[in-house]
Amino acid sequence: MPLPEIPPVTEKLLAAKKAKGLSFADLEKILGRDEVWIAAVFYRQSSASVEEAKKIVAALELDDSVIEELTAYPVKGLGPVVPTDPLIYRFYEIMQVYGLPIKEVIHEKFGDGIMSAIDFTLDVEKEEDPKGDRIKVIMNGKFLPYKKW
Amino acid sequence: MPLPEIPPVTEKLLAAKKAKGLSFADLEKILGRDEVWIAAVFYRQSSASVEEAKKIVAALELDDSVIEELTAYPVKGLGPVVPTDPLIYRFYEIMQVYGLPIKEVIHEKFGDGIMSAIDFTLDVEKEEDPKGDRIKVIMNGKFLPYKKW
Amino acid sequence: MPLPEIPPVTEKLLAAKKAKGLSFADLEKILGRDEVWIAAVFYRQSSASVEEAKKIVAALELDDSVIEELTAYPVKGLGPVVPTDPLIYRFYEIMQVYGLPIKEVIHEKFGDGIMSAIDFTLDVEKEEDPKGDRIKVIMNGKFLPYKKW
Amino acid sequence: MPLPEIPPVTEKLLAAKKAKGLSFADLEKILGRDEVWIAAVFYRQSSASVEEAKKIVAALELDDSVIEELTAYPVKGLGPVVPTDPLIYRFYEIMQVYGLPIKEVIHEKFGDGIMSAIDFTLDVEKEEDPKGDRIKVIMNGKFLPYKKW
Amino acid sequence: MPLPEIPPVTEKLLAAKKAKGLSFADLEKILGRDEVWIAAVFYRQSSASVEEAKKIVAALELDDSVIEELTAYPVKGLGPVVPTDPLIYRFYEIMQVYGLPIKEVIHEKFGDGIMSAIDFTLDVEKEEDPKGDRIKVIMNGKFLPYKKW
Amino acid sequence: MPLPEIPPVTEKLLAAKKAKGLSFADLEKILGRDEVWIAAVFYRQSSASVEEAKKIVAALELDDSVIEELTAYPVKGLGPVVPTDPLIYRFYEIMQVYGLPIKEVIHEKFGDGIMSAIDFTLDVEKEEDPKGDRIKVIMNGKFLPYKKW
Amino acid sequence: MPLPEIPPVTEKLLAAKKAKGLSFADLEKILGRDEVWIAAVFYRQSSASVEEAKKIVAALELDDSVIEELTAYPVKGLGPVVPTDPLIYRFYEIMQVYGLPIKEVIHEKFGDGIMSAIDFTLDVEKEEDPKGDRIKVIMNGKFLPYKKW
Amino acid sequence: MPLPEIPPVTEKLLAAKKAKGLSFADLEKILGRDEVWIAAVFYRQSSASVEEAKKIVAALELDDSVIEELTAYPVKGLGPVVPTDPLIYRFYEIMQVYGLPIKEVIHEKFGDGIMSAIDFTLDVEKEEDPKGDRIKVIMNGKFLPYKKW
Amino acid sequence: MPLPEIPPVTEKLLAAKKAKGLSFADLEKILGRDEVWIAAVFYRQSSASVEEAKKIVAALELDDSVIEELTAYPVKGLGPVVPTDPLIYRFYEIMQVYGLPIKEVIHEKFGDGIMSAIDFTLDVEKEEDPKGDRIKVIMNGKFLPYKKW
Amino acid sequence: MPLPEIPPVTEKLLAAKKAKGLSFADLEKILGRDEVWIAAVFYRQSSASVEEAKKIVAALELDDSVIEELTAYPVKGLGPVVPTDPLIYRFYEIMQVYGLPIKEVIHEKFGDGIMSAIDFTLDVEKEEDPKGDRIKVIMNGKFLPYKKW
Repeated sequence: MPLPEIPPVTEKLLAAKKAKGLSFADLEKILGRDEVWIAAVFYRQSSASVEEAKKIVAALELDDSVIEELTAYPVKGLGPVVPTDPLIYRFYEIMQVYGLPIKEVIHEKFGDGIMSAIDFTLDVEKEEDPKGDRIKVIMNGKFLPYKKW
Repeated sequence: MPLPEIPPVTEKLLAAKKAKGLSFADLEKILGRDEVWIAAVFYRQSSASVEEAKKIVAALELDDSVIEELTAYPVKGLGPVVPTDPLIYRFYEIMQVYGLPIKEVIHEKFGDGIMSAIDFTLDVEKEEDPKGDRIKVIMNGKFLPYKKW
Repeated sequence: MPLPEIPPVTEKLLAAKKAKGLSFADLEKILGRDEVWIAAVFYRQSSASVEEAKKIVAALELDDSVIEELTAYPVKGLGPVVPTDPLIYRFYEIMQVYGLPIKEVIHEKFGDGIMSAIDFTLDVEKEEDPKGDRIKVIMNGKFLPYKKW
Repeated sequence: MPLPEIPPVTEKLLAAKKAKGLSFADLEKILGRDEVWIAAVFYRQSSASVEEAKKIVAALELDDSVIEELTAYPVKGLGPVVPTDPLIYRFYEIMQVYGLPIKEVIHEKFGDGIMSAIDFTLDVEKEEDPKGDRIKVIMNGKFLPYKKW
Repeated sequence: MPLPEIPPVTEKLLAAKKAKGLSFADLEKILGRDEVWIAAVFYRQSSASVEEAKKIVAALELDDSVIEELTAYPVKGLGPVVPTDPLIYRFYEIMQVYGLPIKEVIHEKFGDGIMSAIDFTLDVEKEEDPKGDRIKVIMNGKFLPYKKW
Repeated sequence: MPLPEIPPVTEKLLAAKKAKGLSFADLEKILGRDEVWIAAVFYRQSSASVEEAKKIVAALELDDSVIEELTAYPVKGLGPVVPTDPLIYRFYEIMQVYGLPIKEVIHEKFGDGIMSAIDFTLDVEKEEDPKGDRIKVIMNGKFLPYKKW
Repeated sequence: MPLPEIPPVTEKLLAAKKAKGLSFADLEKILGRDEVWIAAVFYRQSSASVEEAKKIVAALELDDSVIEELTAYPVKGLGPVVPTDPLIYRFYEIMQVYGLPIKEVIHEKFGDGIMSAIDFTLDVEKEEDPKGDRIKVIMNGKFLPYKKW
Repeated sequence: MPLPEIPPVTEKLLAAKKAKGLSFADLEKILGRDEVWIAAVFYRQSSASVEEAKKIVAALELDDSVIEELTAYPVKGLGPVVPTDPLIYRFYEIMQVYGLPIKEVIHEKFGDGIMSAIDFTLDVEKEEDPKGDRIKVIMNGKFLPYKKW
Repeated sequence: MPLPEIPPVTEKLLAAKKAKGLSFADLEKILGRDEVWIAAVFYRQSSASVEEAKKIVAALELDDSVIEELTAYPVKGLGPVVPTDPLIYRFYEIMQVYGLPIKEVIHEKFGDGIMSAIDFTLDVEKEEDPKGDRIKVIMNGKFLPYKKW
Repeated sequence: MPLPEIPPVTEKLLAAKKAKGLSFADLEKILGRDEVWIAAVFYRQSSASVEEAKKIVAALELDDSVIEELTAYPVKGLGPVVPTDPLIYRFYEIMQVYGLPIKEVIHEKFGDGIMSAIDFTLDVEKEEDPKGDRIKVIMNGKFLPYKKW
């Protein structure tokens, strides 16, 4: 099945969050970290500091054994080469359709280099619209120029 | 080679733009359309209206035969399953690492559905920063809830 | 094996439906939703509302724990890149053979855009025919024109 | 590039059709065949009879050498395993998401077998709608029960 | 491992058949169905009628719960894109080497269409030969001409 | 495009055959070789002897340079991992669905070994049938037992 | 992980062999079969006769249930398309680099045909060398000429 | 087509060799190098010294421009992940079936390490046999133990 | 999930190392082997001698059964064709971008051959830098010239 | 063929360099840039400044049109997912075998983050050794810690 295998700790965290009736936006207020980053910690794509892990454990009333897992440095990535989930696929399609145009514009504005995916933040915002609400995804990454040597 | 085959009209447009010393930002002012969208027209990923195509042709002093190509509805997509160009790959990696977290947050904020990649805009902005300039990519797509029937 | 892993809740639902002697057409009458959509809920490709999930649980005499699963927003998709099941493969073949022709006709009738797979319904009908019954599959999706920006 | 290589005869036909200002719907009237089927002949996915090929050649004022190509039995298929063109991909996604549910419903209505993709027709219709026009795709294939021996 | 996962019911059937000392040829006599088709039922690639399933269960002295499994409509297919088992690979190789020649000959004899793999039978015969016995595989499928519409 | 690139000599042979109005069955009579094998020579999957090549060249009134090409030992195979042409795909599907059952039956009849695809013949026959003509494909390959050492 | 799943019987055999302090060369003496072939039996790639299986079971002091497994006809193959284990990969590389040259030489020496991988033996020998010992792998397969028909 | 693209120089060399009526065995005598290695030079998988290249050019009466090509260091490899040519595929199958057994035996004889595919020779010999001639392929590679550090 | 399955012994070793508060640098001092090589032993990519395994077991206070596992010769490799973990992917990208340039430079300095990945060491060093610390990866492999024969 | 298509400008540069009898080490002295980086410019994986391009053009006595190509920002990457050239494959194998161990050691020394492949240098050195010269590849990339937000 295309469903990526969810680590057990992710399932435990999601279940506790649901039982507590907390949203990621609630956790954002508790941790002082963005909700997307917190969701990435849940999915073991980002690693938390001990303090952050303690706050998560406290908010969700989980036992301390979870702290160790949340602070470990994970092997990252979603897995299937082409994602089949329609929501995630759209981001793949955006890269397929707009990848070269974005590259042209970035090179024109910045020169030869890339947008870092490490020194990087990502926010999801809701834009209310009478014709249908809109999703705003804001990526912000440091420009890294190619080093010459 | 991983390099996607560039259509001849794209090469012609890019060469004329270079010869004219125009940036996509300059074309943005001439057309009243975003530079990323214009770059997508150059790469035959978006189709222009006849008026828009005429403005491009006029600005680049190309012959009218280009208009027909720019207004046709293209077969879209970049091609290679996993892109090897580092700049484009980073967007693929973002989806690999943050795909499921984004999905969680969007579902929490909007319910079951997706962000449209069709009723969609994408802007690239430069954020100056003494520690190194930053690239801001803003995606804005209509939320489409799954229809039940 | 090419068989996509069926989630346990799907197996539970299919077994209960069989034990009850109910068809999807019967469930269509009980829920007021199309049988294909209900089958998609069974396979965790669509999410039900709490009311819909309650009706399913009541009809199949399952316990309430199933409700939570049916209302969660699933990671969607069948999985294997090219399906090996002959019935499902034929739909893949139709896209291989008629994909570009359909694209031409849709663009001619509607302009540059796509048929939504989200604001979308799909019906399966039986057309009796003395030379052999026929299957009618009716897809109905909103046309989404490409936004310019 | 993901763009499937278009056979030269397809380009010749599409160019002539454009020059003549004819739509596939116009050709439907001239040939007495559905516009999707005619588009499939253009893309060398279906083969025409000599009479049909002559009508196409006459309508588009092409030379007779085209007849031979249109009546030959083509090697069929679009090519790229997962299509990257957004319009065509949506049909792939529909199979990914609704493939198993459709299979369940067809088996329930017809027994073990498949919908033929050969004894098969496909129509594209426009459904006008104030909230946005809709695309209707109607597939109609003979049910083929598995033979036992 | 390339070994396709065998469903538990298949293992149960094969073990019972071995314990009973029955060959597929013996089962052919008991069921009045071809041995290859029966082997396909064992591997859950074909579905049996209730009567056929009862005969299998009786011959192998299995409990009735097997009947339900044998009569269900399976998701079909072997799985690995290119089979690694040498015996099965040879059939793949035959298609690689003789696929286009067979296509030419079938089109010449029948016109544009295919050999059905559904309205289809397959027999395996042993041809004794002093220079080494030979395997005869006879496929027999209905010719399905492409429908025009 | 999925269409395997046809070698120029194949196109020359097919065109000459068409111009001469000869079928592969006609060539079968002229060469004393099976029509499928001759089609395989056309597609450069089998190599002819000089005598056979001369007969082909004479029958099609081609120049002698063709002889050299027809007698060379070709690199064989169709190419695309999963064929997209519906006629050829059906043979792939047969292996997907009936591969393991055939393997069971062959092992039962012959022991551990394979059917040779080299010491092998393949015939295509037409079986007239009022309910629709049938295609008979007869494969005949030497059984090769695994050698122990 | 790329590690092919080892069948449980293989692990049992390897563990017993290790506990007994036996090498494959020792088993070669006991069975009168080559060590590579015996290793292939261990990995369920070759099937043993009952006598051979009994000798293996006796030498390793395993219970008789192993005999049945060792005499069954296995589904063969290693699995991953491109092997990642460096030792096994080198053989893949040899085929990548020397495949076409070997083909040329074999055709020149034998005509159109192949080396059988079934009527085939493979030996591994150690060649002592002061500059570093060398591995000698000797493959010996029957030449099978392509049959014409 | 699966046929790897042959470099033009390879075609030139093969054509000249054919015109001269020379076998690789003849070239082996002229160059004092093995016929397989010479065939690898023809296919641009091995690089010749200037002296070797001169001998080849002299024997085939080609012009000196060929020398430069034969002495350059090529990018090596055959290409298609799984070869479709039956002769080359058999070597792939041998690795699929006997890969792990060979690994066991080599480790037992030599310890942890690999057979070099660089400090490596490969010979093809014909073994005459009344029951059918046999092909002997002898690989000889230096054992390279894994270095620890 | 792309996460390669970690063997149980690796998890046991990593957990014990964490519990003991030991770094790989500490183990480097205890074993007299490089930390990267020791990490490779942990991940079952390198095999230890009995003495080395005993030191590891002693340092981590594990039971002796671990020794057997650490001294066995493993099937090696990470698995996923293109790694999705960003840290590991960067090494893949380096090969994509700088692979051919490195090849040119190595051939120029050494002739036709390769850098051994077996007679090979790899060190990771930390280079402190006020603008951001740097990672130094030093690979050192024996040059292996292609043997001619 | 796996050989990545070399851009025409690369062939022109390599030919001129050969004709001039210059090594990359010579160019290193002329440009004041590392030979690997210069080779990357030749292969259009790195972009040169106008000054650097002029020096290259002057040293190789090429015309000025080359300058424009060398200063453009290329689409980067080698292409084939798994490289088949033995020299380049070894780097892929190193990542397969030592990828996870390197990851462990880097995380231990630096925390959660990656080695940049952009703010990055790579040197190839020759280490003379009586037992066989060694290749030293030194990678030096900035450590980029994952940003939290």
